[in-house]
Amino acid sequence: MTDTYRPDWVPEDAKKDDTFACHVMKGVKEMHDGLLSSSAHLAPSVRPVQRRKKLTVADYVRGIEQGDRVILSRAITLVESNNKDHFKLAQQVLQAILPRTGKALRIGITGVPGAGKSTFIEAFGNMLIEAGYKVAVLAVDPTSQVTKGSILGDKTRMETLTKHPEAYIRPSPAGGTLGGVARKSRETMLLCEAAGYDIILVETVGVGQSEVTVRSMVDFFMLIVLTGAGDELQGIKKGVMELADAIVVNKADGDNLKRALIARSDYDRMLHYIRPATEKWKTQAYTCSAVTKDGLDELWDVIQEFAEQGKENGVFLKRRQEQSLRWVRDMIDEHLHNLFFNNVVIQGRMGEVENAVLDGEMSESQAVEELITIFDKSLR
Amino acid sequence: MTDTYRPDWVPEDAKKDDTFACHVMKGVKEMHDGLLSSSAHLAPSVRPVQRRKKLTVADYVRGIEQGDRVILSRAITLVESNNKDHFKLAQQVLQAILPRTGKALRIGITGVPGAGKSTFIEAFGNMLIEAGYKVAVLAVDPTSQVTKGSILGDKTRMETLTKHPEAYIRPSPAGGTLGGVARKSRETMLLCEAAGYDIILVETVGVGQSEVTVRSMVDFFMLIVLTGAGDELQGIKKGVMELADAIVVNKADGDNLKRALIARSDYDRMLHYIRPATEKWKTQAYTCSAVTKDGLDELWDVIQEFAEQGKENGVFLKRRQEQSLRWVRDMIDEHLHNLFFNNVVIQGRMGEVENAVLDGEMSESQAVEELITIFDKSLR
Repeated sequence: MTDTYRPDWVPEDAKKDDTFACHVMKGVKEMHDGLLSSSAHLAPSVRPVQRRKKLTVADYVRGIEQGDRVILSRAITLVESNNKDHFKLAQQVLQAILPRTGKALRIGITGVPGAGKSTFIEAFGNMLIEAGYKVAVLAVDPTSQVTKGSILGDKTRMETLTKHPEAYIRPSPAGGTLGGVARKSRETMLLCEAAGYDIILVETVGVGQSEVTVRSMVDFFMLIVLTGAGDELQGIKKGVMELADAIVVNKADGDNLKRALIARSDYDRMLHYIRPATEKWKTQAYTCSAVTKDGLDELWDVIQEFAEQGKENGVFLKRRQEQSLRWVRDMIDEHLHNLFFNNVVIQGRMGEVENAVLDGEMSESQAVEELITIFDKSLR
Repeated sequence: MTDTYRPDWVPEDAKKDDTFACHVMKGVKEMHDGLLSSSAHLAPSVRPVQRRKKLTVADYVRGIEQGDRVILSRAITLVESNNKDHFKLAQQVLQAILPRTGKALRIGITGVPGAGKSTFIEAFGNMLIEAGYKVAVLAVDPTSQVTKGSILGDKTRMETLTKHPEAYIRPSPAGGTLGGVARKSRETMLLCEAAGYDIILVETVGVGQSEVTVRSMVDFFMLIVLTGAGDELQGIKKGVMELADAIVVNKADGDNLKRALIARSDYDRMLHYIRPATEKWKTQAYTCSAVTKDGLDELWDVIQEFAEQGKENGVFLKRRQEQSLRWVRDMIDEHLHNLFFNNVVIQGRMGEVENAVLDGEMSESQAVEELITIFDKSLR
């Protein structure tokens, strides 16, 4: 690692905006850590800039290792920052805490809006805390720039979990490319692990490739679905069931119970046709209720069995290692992609070349050749 | 386009081997065009190098436009060549024939080995020729370097089609990256279109991402399956059904007919749960028999309806345009990827960095930073 190197591989959002773009987001996030007064939260746009003591790498590392939530939050803010100095500092912190990472169980959770992800996480998270675990809840939402963090934004659905000292909840980093959000979320996950959280729940909505991204950063991936199979299933995105280690039919209570049980067996039948996401693991459907808590224990048993079995047969470690190497390669590919497509000369010419291709005046190969020639020259 | 530019974006295989790597493949291919004697085919490794008149761009273009199969074959050999001069010449030919491309209906065909793709193509191709069409059959097989072209290699299964003057059959270009094979196949498709073929059948086996690649170059994509659903379905790769515009249960004849009809309704039921591959088109399952020819006409009606409907509602053109732009971008990404990962300095350091990541000594972001720094320096 060179100290003078300016990390131009920081995803594109960093280049567009080197300043702090997300005061509002920061306000929402840090509210949980008691840094700001509630009036600051109510009027984030007019709150004065808070002067805080600058922390050294050692300060961050010590704070994180002691499980200090304020320091953890500040470290995550650093990881999420698009400022290059912050990025460098964040990388030093990450390097220092690396030996303490990797011990948590990483669980991804997806489902269409309205499937009850938040209520599920509230109930499941509380159950885990009662069982003695420390739980961190993160989100990956590449649209959060637009929606101001739609998922995990509505804290009312996680009211008890939010207040719990053993739970740490962090909304999605503000948008940019999915790759940028993914890097920030993965690094946030590492910080939480170093801070002693045993279980990391990573929530995502089905936007673009976000499920694939979350699948690539977790050990166990579950799909939360609505009751009533059949036509509703059309709403489940292509290929998402193939990523899941478990399908969870939520809201299996009251009048809905019978429909939930039918949905469960419908999903089980469909799973018969799908190759499981994890080697040597049979993906199945389960029911649970965030209201009655039925099924939550069973689901946790399933996840523990998954982890134990995977650790014994080597699948668990193998996936983690593949994820790491894949992550390195994906970040490099994204860096190269951004370097090319954000190049001003390329951007100036791209539209014309694409139109020439669409109009049948230029073959695709020739378009590539021309663009690459332009790019090569622009670097010299 | 610059004349002096050396196209270093030609996929990696080109760099490893600038000479003619595939005499055997060429022997097999050109046999159909009557260029070589049968003894040359029987002993390809000892056959003397044939001196052929060098063709100009104008020669190629004229020959292709006249539907001259010998010239077409030589143009395809040029497109498939890993020699840089050939590449440049091929691009000039492609540019010249561009106005005559795009008029064919492009149909992709996939299925597990043994599903009967070759016998289906033989029967379906003959039916199309009898209906007055000129048919080209291509293959995309990224493993062909290893297997010496396993698909379309066994010509005995396409005996009558091979002999037909209105059919042109070309095995997969020899291996290399899937991206390299894909470029060659797409350009071969364009050459065939310019030579007057009305229907292009592109066969692929389910290796790696080859179905996704073929889906990205055709209008209509069909999955050929075996009779007997249930456990056999496990053999169908993740996500392949989601790419299909039709699922065709082959071998629906004799003792097998009843099972084929059951399989068909099983697949139809499954399709109910899957979002169709093409906007405004309902993917369904069909049965057919290469022996009795039952169902082939119906399938062709379905494909024609697909094309007509898509041309009316705009989906057909929209997909073609998206495919073109996606292809340009994918080729650029592949170029950048190869530039990086084939860089000798990167290759020399990659193993160590990856091990440091796997041993938990280096974070993934740091690995990326280090590798990119090395890469930047190596370019200077």
